[in-house]
Amino acid sequence: MDREVAIIGGSMTKFGQRDAWIRELLSQAGEACLEDAGVEPDDVDHVYVSNMASGEFEGQGGIMNAVAHDLGLLPAYSQRIDQTSSSGGAGMYAAWQSIKSGASDMTLLVGGEKMTHKGTGDATDIIASITHPAEYKHGVTLPSFAGMTARHYLEKFDAPRESLAKVAVKNHENGTRNPKAQFQKEITEKKALESPIIADPLRLYDFCPITDGSAALMFCPVEVAEEYADDYAVVSGIGGATDTHVVHERDDPTTMGGVVDSGEEAYEMAGIGPDDIDVAELHDMFTILEFLQMEGLDFAETGEAWKHVEEGRTAIDGDRPINTSGGLKSKGHPLGASGVAQGYEIYEQLVGEAGERQVDAETGLACNVGGFGNCVITTIMEAR
Amino acid sequence: MDREVAIIGGSMTKFGQRDAWIRELLSQAGEACLEDAGVEPDDVDHVYVSNMASGEFEGQGGIMNAVAHDLGLLPAYSQRIDQTSSSGGAGMYAAWQSIKSGASDMTLLVGGEKMTHKGTGDATDIIASITHPAEYKHGVTLPSFAGMTARHYLEKFDAPRESLAKVAVKNHENGTRNPKAQFQKEITEKKALESPIIADPLRLYDFCPITDGSAALMFCPVEVAEEYADDYAVVSGIGGATDTHVVHERDDPTTMGGVVDSGEEAYEMAGIGPDDIDVAELHDMFTILEFLQMEGLDFAETGEAWKHVEEGRTAIDGDRPINTSGGLKSKGHPLGASGVAQGYEIYEQLVGEAGERQVDAETGLACNVGGFGNCVITTIMEAR
Repeated sequence: MDREVAIIGGSMTKFGQRDAWIRELLSQAGEACLEDAGVEPDDVDHVYVSNMASGEFEGQGGIMNAVAHDLGLLPAYSQRIDQTSSSGGAGMYAAWQSIKSGASDMTLLVGGEKMTHKGTGDATDIIASITHPAEYKHGVTLPSFAGMTARHYLEKFDAPRESLAKVAVKNHENGTRNPKAQFQKEITEKKALESPIIADPLRLYDFCPITDGSAALMFCPVEVAEEYADDYAVVSGIGGATDTHVVHERDDPTTMGGVVDSGEEAYEMAGIGPDDIDVAELHDMFTILEFLQMEGLDFAETGEAWKHVEEGRTAIDGDRPINTSGGLKSKGHPLGASGVAQGYEIYEQLVGEAGERQVDAETGLACNVGGFGNCVITTIMEAR
Repeated sequence: MDREVAIIGGSMTKFGQRDAWIRELLSQAGEACLEDAGVEPDDVDHVYVSNMASGEFEGQGGIMNAVAHDLGLLPAYSQRIDQTSSSGGAGMYAAWQSIKSGASDMTLLVGGEKMTHKGTGDATDIIASITHPAEYKHGVTLPSFAGMTARHYLEKFDAPRESLAKVAVKNHENGTRNPKAQFQKEITEKKALESPIIADPLRLYDFCPITDGSAALMFCPVEVAEEYADDYAVVSGIGGATDTHVVHERDDPTTMGGVVDSGEEAYEMAGIGPDDIDVAELHDMFTILEFLQMEGLDFAETGEAWKHVEEGRTAIDGDRPINTSGGLKSKGHPLGASGVAQGYEIYEQLVGEAGERQVDAETGLACNVGGFGNCVITTIMEAR
């Protein structure tokens, strides 16, 4: 059995502060995805639920069972997948494996997280539980890593502070074109540069918000996809990698090993290289991460990603648009949903359903990062 | 690519009350498994961590990253799998898919849970978070379902209360032969029948204990297995299914749909039937579940499983021994570990390493149940 894996439909809920629990959010996205793909619940063999922490956030266990039940998918096989912020990407990989292995002929992937009810402090504590204790007990959280890495990057590569603000401005601008994004407003570079300091040199507008939301995708073999859709996407390359749990043990803080390794794996499987990628969704949980991923994926030479942004090459009308969806920065970052939502944006771009955000793209890439590059999944998709 | 999936090594920590956190337990089992399989850390492509609730039990997130790091497996892909009590079985399925799909040539599966530090009350609360709110708010927990189902079964099939006690006696007897089991003591039928009532008619000795522990298995394609081992096992059939989240919506409380569906899938893939199974590990979280699984998997006619136990047919010297390891009842039930430990027992039986528990077996089956049959994985393994 040597199957090609297709994606034939997708959906996402409105991201933001939502008056609904995780179970409802997941079901909303799942239902919309079934409808978008034209798939009957009875035809779903496997359902994967990407979710980091429904237990910690709202005391909800067994979420995969609840969602399979709510969507009328029984007796479909159901399972929850956690890989922290990259749970969604890990779900893409699991869904891909389920089809590729022949275990399933129709797999629904739903990712989501309900976070805002906890408030920023408690949510940050839950997220910080993934940090190594040797770092956490000294007060180091993910935002701290981002601040230290940003300072190092700017100094090492003589990059202007403004280049980070430009990432935020670009992604907010894209977000205004995405009705599902959490933020629907443009920001100015001045506003970003004058926003409150969070982890020096990073300021409020360098960080993604706390978000509720869910996204879904439908996977099947290409032979089956032909029955459902004229236009669909195939996952032509996918790879995952893990980096050190202790972030300060890494050789070079400005290189994300997991991005490099997972990217190489995905490129090799797809048989293409970075120049072939027309559009990409990168994990801009912090603005600095967009630079590190651009460089780790060879979109830019080491130390030069900031120049691409300065030159407008990553803008929606640039030569390789990045984060047309608004990215995590503007679209929001419901942990378990984000990787799926990245995949959904690339899918929409490839099948020509991205509305005001539509770019000309035959091949797209999504890079989903867990922790501070601790776990990374890179996925390459092509239009059919 | 049409690969057969082999298991070439395994391990488990001592189950019981352990003075070690989840991270250490998982690493202990993982390390022992690498050694048992003769596999170098560098040769591992994927690592799956089956764990229901390290966040809820001890505030530990990102456990897959921590374990991959601790075992020196970087940059191997790592991911956490949750399917409540059947997380271990779900890990078997994920590991199988990773090999079958070609995504990995060497996959380490480690399952574990650290529970005892919470005490029975808090642990039961965490487990009860998987119950449907419509039931939970009326005070219905998994033990309540077990009690109601046991009463129904005994009345419907005119089975003696003693038959349930005999399951406990048998599994405790097997546990005395397993140095890793939580309990190393025989019990009498009288003691079981006179133990405190928990959920009438079920008593203390009808329930598995709260347990800390971890277990691991190493998966690879058969071609690779040949390089590592003379004797190994293949996973010849595997299937998973989900049943209603609301338990009282099921047609018949004495039939576990998930067991039936996952079993049929596994038998079909393996191309064999129940009569071909020489030894089985069933999910005896409650004694009554052993009957329901025996019947769901067609080891016994509906309403007759209790007769097999009365007749000693499921004893270690019977015609189809069940729970030679001691089962969850005597070995213990660290949620995320249990499905992996079931697989490990079958593996040991098939490669002839089960010591005092050794039976004559070429083909074995493991049935791992999440919730009250909410999620089920059935795995069939054959000796090579």
